[in-house]
Amino acid sequence: MANESKPQVAVVMGSSSDWETMKRACDILDQFGVAYHKQVISAHRTPELMAEFAHNARANGLKVIIAGAGGAAHLPGMIAAQTTLPVIGVPVRSHALSGWDSLLSIVQMPGGIPVATTAVGNSGATNAGLLAVQMLGAFDADLAQALDDYRNSLKEKVAESNAQLV
Amino acid sequence: MANESKPQVAVVMGSSSDWETMKRACDILDQFGVAYHKQVISAHRTPELMAEFAHNARANGLKVIIAGAGGAAHLPGMIAAQTTLPVIGVPVRSHALSGWDSLLSIVQMPGGIPVATTAVGNSGATNAGLLAVQMLGAFDADLAQALDDYRNSLKEKVAESNAQLV
Amino acid sequence: MANESKPQVAVVMGSSSDWETMKRACDILDQFGVAYHKQVISAHRTPELMAEFAHNARANGLKVIIAGAGGAAHLPGMIAAQTTLPVIGVPVRSHALSGWDSLLSIVQMPGGIPVATTAVGNSGATNAGLLAVQMLGAFDADLAQALDDYRNSLKEKVAESNAQLV
Amino acid sequence: MANESKPQVAVVMGSSSDWETMKRACDILDQFGVAYHKQVISAHRTPELMAEFAHNARANGLKVIIAGAGGAAHLPGMIAAQTTLPVIGVPVRSHALSGWDSLLSIVQMPGGIPVATTAVGNSGATNAGLLAVQMLGAFDADLAQALDDYRNSLKEKVAESNAQLV
Amino acid sequence: MANESKPQVAVVMGSSSDWETMKRACDILDQFGVAYHKQVISAHRTPELMAEFAHNARANGLKVIIAGAGGAAHLPGMIAAQTTLPVIGVPVRSHALSGWDSLLSIVQMPGGIPVATTAVGNSGATNAGLLAVQMLGAFDADLAQALDDYRNSLKEKVAESNAQLV
Amino acid sequence: MANESKPQVAVVMGSSSDWETMKRACDILDQFGVAYHKQVISAHRTPELMAEFAHNARANGLKVIIAGAGGAAHLPGMIAAQTTLPVIGVPVRSHALSGWDSLLSIVQMPGGIPVATTAVGNSGATNAGLLAVQMLGAFDADLAQALDDYRNSLKEKVAESNAQLV
Amino acid sequence: MANESKPQVAVVMGSSSDWETMKRACDILDQFGVAYHKQVISAHRTPELMAEFAHNARANGLKVIIAGAGGAAHLPGMIAAQTTLPVIGVPVRSHALSGWDSLLSIVQMPGGIPVATTAVGNSGATNAGLLAVQMLGAFDADLAQALDDYRNSLKEKVAESNAQLV
Amino acid sequence: MANESKPQVAVVMGSSSDWETMKRACDILDQFGVAYHKQVISAHRTPELMAEFAHNARANGLKVIIAGAGGAAHLPGMIAAQTTLPVIGVPVRSHALSGWDSLLSIVQMPGGIPVATTAVGNSGATNAGLLAVQMLGAFDADLAQALDDYRNSLKEKVAESNAQLV
Repeated sequence: MANESKPQVAVVMGSSSDWETMKRACDILDQFGVAYHKQVISAHRTPELMAEFAHNARANGLKVIIAGAGGAAHLPGMIAAQTTLPVIGVPVRSHALSGWDSLLSIVQMPGGIPVATTAVGNSGATNAGLLAVQMLGAFDADLAQALDDYRNSLKEKVAESNAQLV
Repeated sequence: MANESKPQVAVVMGSSSDWETMKRACDILDQFGVAYHKQVISAHRTPELMAEFAHNARANGLKVIIAGAGGAAHLPGMIAAQTTLPVIGVPVRSHALSGWDSLLSIVQMPGGIPVATTAVGNSGATNAGLLAVQMLGAFDADLAQALDDYRNSLKEKVAESNAQLV
Repeated sequence: MANESKPQVAVVMGSSSDWETMKRACDILDQFGVAYHKQVISAHRTPELMAEFAHNARANGLKVIIAGAGGAAHLPGMIAAQTTLPVIGVPVRSHALSGWDSLLSIVQMPGGIPVATTAVGNSGATNAGLLAVQMLGAFDADLAQALDDYRNSLKEKVAESNAQLV
Repeated sequence: MANESKPQVAVVMGSSSDWETMKRACDILDQFGVAYHKQVISAHRTPELMAEFAHNARANGLKVIIAGAGGAAHLPGMIAAQTTLPVIGVPVRSHALSGWDSLLSIVQMPGGIPVATTAVGNSGATNAGLLAVQMLGAFDADLAQALDDYRNSLKEKVAESNAQLV
Repeated sequence: MANESKPQVAVVMGSSSDWETMKRACDILDQFGVAYHKQVISAHRTPELMAEFAHNARANGLKVIIAGAGGAAHLPGMIAAQTTLPVIGVPVRSHALSGWDSLLSIVQMPGGIPVATTAVGNSGATNAGLLAVQMLGAFDADLAQALDDYRNSLKEKVAESNAQLV
Repeated sequence: MANESKPQVAVVMGSSSDWETMKRACDILDQFGVAYHKQVISAHRTPELMAEFAHNARANGLKVIIAGAGGAAHLPGMIAAQTTLPVIGVPVRSHALSGWDSLLSIVQMPGGIPVATTAVGNSGATNAGLLAVQMLGAFDADLAQALDDYRNSLKEKVAESNAQLV
Repeated sequence: MANESKPQVAVVMGSSSDWETMKRACDILDQFGVAYHKQVISAHRTPELMAEFAHNARANGLKVIIAGAGGAAHLPGMIAAQTTLPVIGVPVRSHALSGWDSLLSIVQMPGGIPVATTAVGNSGATNAGLLAVQMLGAFDADLAQALDDYRNSLKEKVAESNAQLV
Repeated sequence: MANESKPQVAVVMGSSSDWETMKRACDILDQFGVAYHKQVISAHRTPELMAEFAHNARANGLKVIIAGAGGAAHLPGMIAAQTTLPVIGVPVRSHALSGWDSLLSIVQMPGGIPVATTAVGNSGATNAGLLAVQMLGAFDADLAQALDDYRNSLKEKVAESNAQLV
């Protein structure tokens, strides 16, 4: 399984308040033994840091970038604008508008600059981690096998959960 | 009235397809004799150009920036992140989601980096021009007088329009 | 830095229940040393007071007006209709419809009468304060410097917040 | 049937472009022989005219006011704020957001100042006319009878329309 | 002031769970001394009772009917279909969809059968009570005076509420 | 296949303007040889006719009722309130709000009175016809076989449609 | 009343977390003495189990299937795609988007494959149970009588609930 | 540049009517010389074909799957449920609800089964093609270079488009 020390994945987020959500992406990467780098990078407060991060991402050995943000969530799209690595965007649930703003700000990218968007909130963060693993796993037989095992574990949990219907 | 050759206002937009909307902001600036600079600057396709534009805006003598964009509209917010001049954002009406995405991507900025958002589409562009004039007019008695005249002309049009209720 | 006793900014709101939100605009103005006047003015319950306030605003030395309201939020637009000073509208989060009503009632102004709208709720109020400072700062080098300092403090907080990703 | 020359109903609208919709309210009033006054009054462009209209409405013999507007539609609510006559609000369909903005700006009035809101667009204008007639008809036996006749005509049209299901 | 024992207003609601909201309409009617009848009538569970109520409403001396309901809220529209008295509809806030369903089910009536719709939830119920009083007050000088007094009391509360901005 | 003259299904709609949509339900019933009755019945304009229809439906031999309506669409729910036969509701696409109002008015029924809701517009009408056939087909082996044949024809069309990807 | 041991109805759900909602469907089936089978079947985690369940449903004696799911809720539609028995879909309320996603994912099925959709959340689950009973009751006089009794009990509860309006 | 005859990417769609949108993904793949397989596969009409396609995808040499669908769009999620290759979902714009249904049905996947979602409609299809190229390009220096060239061509078009602002 891919577990080299040099990170293939980065998990960035617009604010430390997004960590409660985004840690679920890191949990998945930990579970699959995929090395990653995590950092708060704000599109609006640290645009230069964001540009530097994005421009250097490929040279730094990254294969995939996961970016989470809420509200007028510009981080995933602006990183995507400054690298040609695949960028996964996680719409963090906002207080006022429940994440509708986060979702639309991330998913509705214009033709030319894609962001691979997942669901609003926790399940989106979990799936961002999985999607990163699947992108790597398309070129890595060990990860592919680990993904199969993960899917089988999901199936087993479904079977077991019938006991709770009482 | 303010009509010096050095522009106090810039009108930028993410794509030339936004011009149909954004020209209404320029029409207002023309009408009030406010010099402006207009340019296509794309947050996603030309992020370096955007950064350069924003960082130099104040030194170049600008007082207000008007930025229009549609869909996952990151241009107004990302310019606002890179200057402390007031930035007015115009949500251009998108095809798929009628401008809901444009509106939320522009207005829902996080605390710290404001964007002065106007209405979706044509009336928003007209009002962006007026808002820029009003910001200048807070410090310019001639523009303030011109704004009063404009308002009076609106009143007169209302009175005249009763003839159309047939 | 601008700190004269005569207020350049007014912060008005439709109800004292909006204060919990709107005080964030005042916090920013306090932080930048910008003098302001704060008052409850209701478009619906005190329309005459609103008209008087708006008509006298420029003569009273105001440069910018911040108006917050929720639900069918008519206060920002109706003040904007009765002054040519720039008016910033803050959509206060409503109970029933989470602020969708507040947002649309404020931002969707017809061509002719602009309102500079910020985000729904607390971050919108903070940004209304900042936007007012930025409007003043376009003509005030000291405020411009203070805004730069503020932005730098935001950057520093981002760097420090990485420690919380555990 | 009520057909005196002094109008009991006023039909006002924010712009002559609303007439296409609002004429349906007038058609109903014509059909029932209820005298009415029609006028363009803009909350944003002619706030003084609006205030004067509203304050004098009762003294002028009006019993009901119908007000139509679109976008950030403040006219019905602001008239309602300045009279205690019943005000019926018609959300005119807006171009950008299909009338969602018009609807919420009119219907979501705060406690204290009611607006009787009807549907978005043409059927809302028709129903505003009918609602005015019904308010008068609560105190006018002739109008009540005319309303019964109108309802019966609707029933007959339903029966006849089966012939079109081919 | 109108205070006769025979009710001029009925306040009906689809479920006793709507009472928490609808009692605000009754509070207003009590405050203005307007006699009313209150009852749970369900469009879906007691359609015959609803039909009987609506058909007899005018003969029973009612002048206005207030009907509150939530979700697929059919009560106001179906009563309106069976009487030509003015019917005021109050969209009670639903659990799942926050009252969007209640609002649209009540306000979007087809041309021919109007419902005078107020805001979602508590302020809508308060305003339904006031709207009923205003309909009566169009033909009752004492109620008109009481409405003026009520409006003045609102103004006074606004003035007093400035003390809370601390 | 079920083709007796006495209808097992009724297809009703609130207005003849709904026929353009609802005829798709009839097309399906024709295709499966299921006898049906079609009629315009308006909840709002002909409530007595609706009540009579619903109360007699079971005695008249009906097994399923399909009801289509738009806007504040009360027909399906009000028929469902007056019969215990299964009622299928089709949200007809409204002009102003694109069918959001129709959908919510039909699907958000309170516990106790179900409506089986299909998609907005044409595909919803087609599926209403199919759902009726499937309900009958649960107790009719010939119809079950015909449904299998229909499904197979859908599969074949998919295979053939690849030729169009050019 | 139908109470044979072989289930005529299946109640399936995408996750054991849906049980809190879906048990309301089972409560209704218990109340009417309709035998049912309940199981967790996930469209996404156990697609083969889902296919097997759906393909065998008719042969196993089922007449109706109730399927509940939330978020991108594919279970009802995918079961419907693999059986011609009637499938009732219950949109379980999602955390992030309040069930809008669940509702649209279930109700907006393409022409050819119907799902009978009920309301979001608890009332939708209750109504799914009732709808299943009504489908069976169209061919079962005892169940039809039991449904009449149930409706009468609803009427009685309405009458009794007036006592709570205090 | 990757141009082998064995496809690394599949572009599938629920209906041939989606081709108008999805061909934009194929245009991008053609432009980058990435071999692909295109096919109509319907989740609802051909679930067995879908299962077979998904289960064999990795063995057939695919690295990425692009799936487009509209309305209750289950195709991307159901393919994702049956392979661990990365699946990109394109929400095709639906007629009735403008693609809101397509978007939510695709993006709101539960934790465990990710779909990489792009924008509604044409730009989403273009970006799905690009996202696939970027996923391959993370492991292919020639494609990475081609992506850089593509981005440069976008920049040039922006510069040229200023000529259109007249």
